[in-house]
Amino acid sequence: MASPEIEALTQALSRLPGLGPRSARRAVLHLLKRRESALEPLLRALDAVNERLVTCGICGNVDTVDPCGICADQRRDARALCVVEDVADLWALDKSRLFPGRFHVLGGRLSALEGVRPEDLSIDALVARVEAGGIDEVVLAMNATLEGQTTAHYLAERLERFPVRLTQLAHGVPVGGELDYLDEGTLAQALRARRPLG
Amino acid sequence: MASPEIEALTQALSRLPGLGPRSARRAVLHLLKRRESALEPLLRALDAVNERLVTCGICGNVDTVDPCGICADQRRDARALCVVEDVADLWALDKSRLFPGRFHVLGGRLSALEGVRPEDLSIDALVARVEAGGIDEVVLAMNATLEGQTTAHYLAERLERFPVRLTQLAHGVPVGGELDYLDEGTLAQALRARRPLG
Repeated sequence: MASPEIEALTQALSRLPGLGPRSARRAVLHLLKRRESALEPLLRALDAVNERLVTCGICGNVDTVDPCGICADQRRDARALCVVEDVADLWALDKSRLFPGRFHVLGGRLSALEGVRPEDLSIDALVARVEAGGIDEVVLAMNATLEGQTTAHYLAERLERFPVRLTQLAHGVPVGGELDYLDEGTLAQALRARRPLG
Repeated sequence: MASPEIEALTQALSRLPGLGPRSARRAVLHLLKRRESALEPLLRALDAVNERLVTCGICGNVDTVDPCGICADQRRDARALCVVEDVADLWALDKSRLFPGRFHVLGGRLSALEGVRPEDLSIDALVARVEAGGIDEVVLAMNATLEGQTTAHYLAERLERFPVRLTQLAHGVPVGGELDYLDEGTLAQALRARRPLG
């Protein structure tokens, strides 16, 4: 039998999304074989994240400072707010540097199946931010899933009494996408939102 | 952009077998959301493994003591030695408690493709253990792959001059296996080694 230390590490790794018990065991073996090149860097990286990272009290982003770098950046357009489900979505959108405004992380999406209710998400904080004024546009950048869109509709209802423009991401054919591989829903949206050429 | 701490953790995780860049990012997000239930246990488990585990100087097993628990166990049959490719194979065989002897971990298998030569594996140490005497049987428990079997044949050549019995694991239909899902090689081996019923 492997030692209790190895069992504990295998268990901790097997709880990560994407790793089952077998692949966690393979990962442990990989780490044991490569102590200096794999185990120690991972340990240091985890320790740094654990020691230094905090959640931004304004938007829910994760950063080494609170308020986070995005909220503290005065060059950003404070009148545009982009609401996302998760920190990963914020990273994806911010990496592209296409959105000049600020963000608000909900921390998930409404889900009857998983029992996620409005009070489980950072929705009251979002309403308070919009109510405080100074925001012209709120982009509801939820995922294009049933639950994401349900969440967007719920947020739209909560925000409709404020003088802000509510927008959402466009649906359509992804760049590089081939038509015969796309689902009917996407094709229908792309056709409905068709634009003049050129 | 995510902070450098997060980038470093994503990179360290994405080098684990079974995790790519995308799933590493999802794993990081999972850890950030569940600091006390996921990040801190993983950190403690990694730290314990890093602090306490050593490689056994005799057999190559990984344990908190050197010699390892198996090599130090006087109740084990010192006359039987089971040679395996990796520590994971040792764990798998030892978990079943079917082998009463000791082990020897090669640390891999010969591979022309990956440039693994005899001197890259713990083969000289194995020959020295057998040469020292007191061993009656050496089980060559390599994987049933081309490279595993090549390694077993190489070891058999290196060990044939000693008065030990060389054996290998039986091939055949796995328990619960259905014949029409098995490859021809396994079927051929199972048929060749067929036994009288009952």
